Amino acid sequence: MLTSCGREVAHIRSNQARDIVMIKSHPGNYFEDFRLGQVITHATPRTVTAGDVSLYTALYGSRFAVQSSDHFARAIGCRDAPVDDLLVFTIVFGKTVPDISLNAVANLGYANCRFLAPVYPGDTLSAKSEIIGLNENSNRKTGVVYVRSTGFNAAGTAVLEYVRWVMVRKRDEGAPPRGKDVPSLPKLVAPDDIGAACPPLRGAAYDHALAGSAQGFGDYAPGERIDHVDGMTVEEAEHQLATRLYQNTARGHFDQFIQGKGRFGRRLIYGGARDFLSPAFSLNGVANAFHIFGINGGPPRGPAFPRGHAVCPLAVQAP
Amino acid sequence: MLTSCGREVAHIRSNQARDIVMIKSHPGNYFEDFRLGQVITHATPRTVTAGDVSLYTALYGSRFAVQSSDHFARAIGCRDAPVDDLLVFTIVFGKTVPDISLNAVANLGYANCRFLAPVYPGDTLSAKSEIIGLNENSNRKTGVVYVRSTGFNAAGTAVLEYVRWVMVRKRDEGAPPRGKDVPSLPKLVAPDDIGAACPPLRGAAYDHALAGSAQGFGDYAPGERIDHVDGMTVEEAEHQLATRLYQNTARGHFDQFIQGKGRFGRRLIYGGARDFLSPAFSLNGVANAFHIFGINGGPPRGPAFPRGHAVCPLAVQAP
Amino acid sequence: MLTSCGREVAHIRSNQARDIVMIKSHPGNYFEDFRLGQVITHATPRTVTAGDVSLYTALYGSRFAVQSSDHFARAIGCRDAPVDDLLVFTIVFGKTVPDISLNAVANLGYANCRFLAPVYPGDTLSAKSEIIGLNENSNRKTGVVYVRSTGFNAAGTAVLEYVRWVMVRKRDEGAPPRGKDVPSLPKLVAPDDIGAACPPLRGAAYDHALAGSAQGFGDYAPGERIDHVDGMTVEEAEHQLATRLYQNTARGHFDQFIQGKGRFGRRLIYGGARDFLSPAFSLNGVANAFHIFGINGGPPRGPAFPRGHAVCPLAVQAP
Repeated sequence: MLTSCGREVAHIRSNQARDIVMIKSHPGNYFEDFRLGQVITHATPRTVTAGDVSLYTALYGSRFAVQSSDHFARAIGCRDAPVDDLLVFTIVFGKTVPDISLNAVANLGYANCRFLAPVYPGDTLSAKSEIIGLNENSNRKTGVVYVRSTGFNAAGTAVLEYVRWVMVRKRDEGAPPRGKDVPSLPKLVAPDDIGAACPPLRGAAYDHALAGSAQGFGDYAPGERIDHVDGMTVEEAEHQLATRLYQNTARGHFDQFIQGKGRFGRRLIYGGARDFLSPAFSLNGVANAFHIFGINGGPPRGPAFPRGHAVCPLAVQAP
Repeated sequence: MLTSCGREVAHIRSNQARDIVMIKSHPGNYFEDFRLGQVITHATPRTVTAGDVSLYTALYGSRFAVQSSDHFARAIGCRDAPVDDLLVFTIVFGKTVPDISLNAVANLGYANCRFLAPVYPGDTLSAKSEIIGLNENSNRKTGVVYVRSTGFNAAGTAVLEYVRWVMVRKRDEGAPPRGKDVPSLPKLVAPDDIGAACPPLRGAAYDHALAGSAQGFGDYAPGERIDHVDGMTVEEAEHQLATRLYQNTARGHFDQFIQGKGRFGRRLIYGGARDFLSPAFSLNGVANAFHIFGINGGPPRGPAFPRGHAVCPLAVQAP
Repeated sequence: MLTSCGREVAHIRSNQARDIVMIKSHPGNYFEDFRLGQVITHATPRTVTAGDVSLYTALYGSRFAVQSSDHFARAIGCRDAPVDDLLVFTIVFGKTVPDISLNAVANLGYANCRFLAPVYPGDTLSAKSEIIGLNENSNRKTGVVYVRSTGFNAAGTAVLEYVRWVMVRKRDEGAPPRGKDVPSLPKLVAPDDIGAACPPLRGAAYDHALAGSAQGFGDYAPGERIDHVDGMTVEEAEHQLATRLYQNTARGHFDQFIQGKGRFGRRLIYGGARDFLSPAFSLNGVANAFHIFGINGGPPRGPAFPRGHAVCPLAVQAP
């Protein structure tokens, strides 16, 4: 029988087999399970609700006026207050985890991430991924999987697309090596590729006092550095709530019993539950930067642990 | 004056009585407060919302497609994504606690629990209970209360019914003993008694890739054991959020100051905040088992404490 | 450039200025930044949703029938289940923090707080404040700011008004002293000033069994004391979730790294995340007291820390 990701699953049936543990639970894909060009339909479509938005606010403290107020959002030309871009990202990303990165050693980077259509509460999100590159490491223990993932709404419109590369364990270190396929990835999100998640705005209706800052695009200069002042200490319960809300099944985030015996001796915070504090902090200094056009990032800077301290200096890069 | 559970409450009124502590707060019923055949209307009707569903997802990480996606649920014949069966159970159960089990020593079992009609966000749930058995223990300190509890929607349709038996303290150990009334309870939920919470499904519209598994009913055999792989460590904040969300007032779950002096030296996790991790784990291996027809269970296996480790092996029982 | 609170912000622009940290982030107002009669439009209008209400329930365990059930609320004459008064208060209060109390040393009191119109999920709240008093302390390091804050719905109807006074640090202790302006504040919320958040109720439709208590207004006497029985231990994750949900940016609640070095060595619980447990506790004893007409309170009784123990005895005061 083929799983949704094309991997064959042995399974045994017997009325007498009381003590045989079945292989029905999915242990996740290993490096040699992926094939170039493979397309994976991820499980668990999800209707995003006002409840998800409230929890996102409670977890990150986001305060952008456009995402906080239907009234403000409608005034500038949105249908309603849109779902925060990063909540869309984490929900779509979460769907890819059981198929792509359950056996990942490290998440290496993102390229050409673009938000292609607005998402509102009530929209149902689903996700597909295509394997666009595979590169076994010389140690023969792991390989890098390059995957293009796309999130869709119920009408089939793409709302988000990004490339991610991730180092995944091999199941069998002795498996024969395979050819090296490394995709060519853009260094920046090109202006022409920018998505359509944000409608043309009625600028005159944008109330800067309600948004929390008078500073617009013209007030920021390349190279400028902004100290966002605030810091936050993340608790175990918080990162677990976040990661489950996104239906992200990566094991390192939940199980102190297993993680306590591992490399770090404790649970890891899901990167999305750490990095996504940044926009919330950034409001103090960039309050009008309410929409993310694109993300093109390198590797994360090291694991974060609960009760670790997150701060966010921001550098404005030249376009 | 009679409370909602028929117990007389002494109360004193005086404009001068500045230092008399009133008995207006409800200390809960003791064993000798219950009468066979007594019907109790429980307080606090509750409109279930998308916010409750999001919190349930954040607390348990449930990932069943039918409950996660309006679009998926409608395709197979539901009106919308239904509220998870166990969220319905915990909300109805929570209403019964102030009247039934505030002075409980132990929760002993459930029988013939059936989900009788679907619940959707926007539905208002309320609960009634009938005392169907009473059995004082030979130590004269406690007795077992058997209660049939029913949850209703605002139209008065029963959505859930179950029998529960629970050991409750006596207020006065010297109170006269009473006759023994132990109801006859089914050993199993009979197929003919199975509830109507799940409408007839359009099987052809059920998308196994989106549901996360190709395995249907015919793929499981009696006696089969499945290792659901995942584990989760529960934090204090998490079980408290859950138990308050269900408006369950049992004291052992909240007050470290009191519990720190008690038998276990710490707060107990509400059973519903522990056992209900099981279905979330079970998705990995039984992804298409999205609806619970019935529960017929013995006593819980011992108290769980925060930071305890929950795992869930599942055994398939012959019908 | 003027911020929303009228304070001038220096800012430097240069394509070469890679290492200059901008003053674009708002460090909050200091005592000498306020002027008598100044009106401040606070940032971040917020649409209150069913998700916010669920989180409030999960955080406080509130169980009032009117706020819990649309069906119950409509029966007695409300449009729907109204948003809990204190959730309205904390959301409006949260908006005032970045402008009023980011540099506060202590929150001193509230006067004439009144709930003026009901708030339902879907309503968008915004807030304005007027500075009505300023009184520098003799130590020249701090001063007391008196502010009247008003919350509005999207139609511009005031839903909440209160006076608050708060001790705020001076930026420059050597700044010239200013005149003393202390407003005259009522000692009580006068019956004629009571707000209109609660519509005239159809008393006959009020179901006391569903509300959880047969005791009405006539059953309470001035001077009566009620032991609400219950206690709750507050976790770090819980008060942080609450405070971020209210978009309250006060730093002392979030950053263990900074607070660990400070006066108390740990994070403080936001007063709203402590005091608002009281109504939840009070249900056991005052279950029919579902609406707050006014608050006229002195200073809080000392800082609360996570894992501190909250209990709530209630004294009935003569009108």
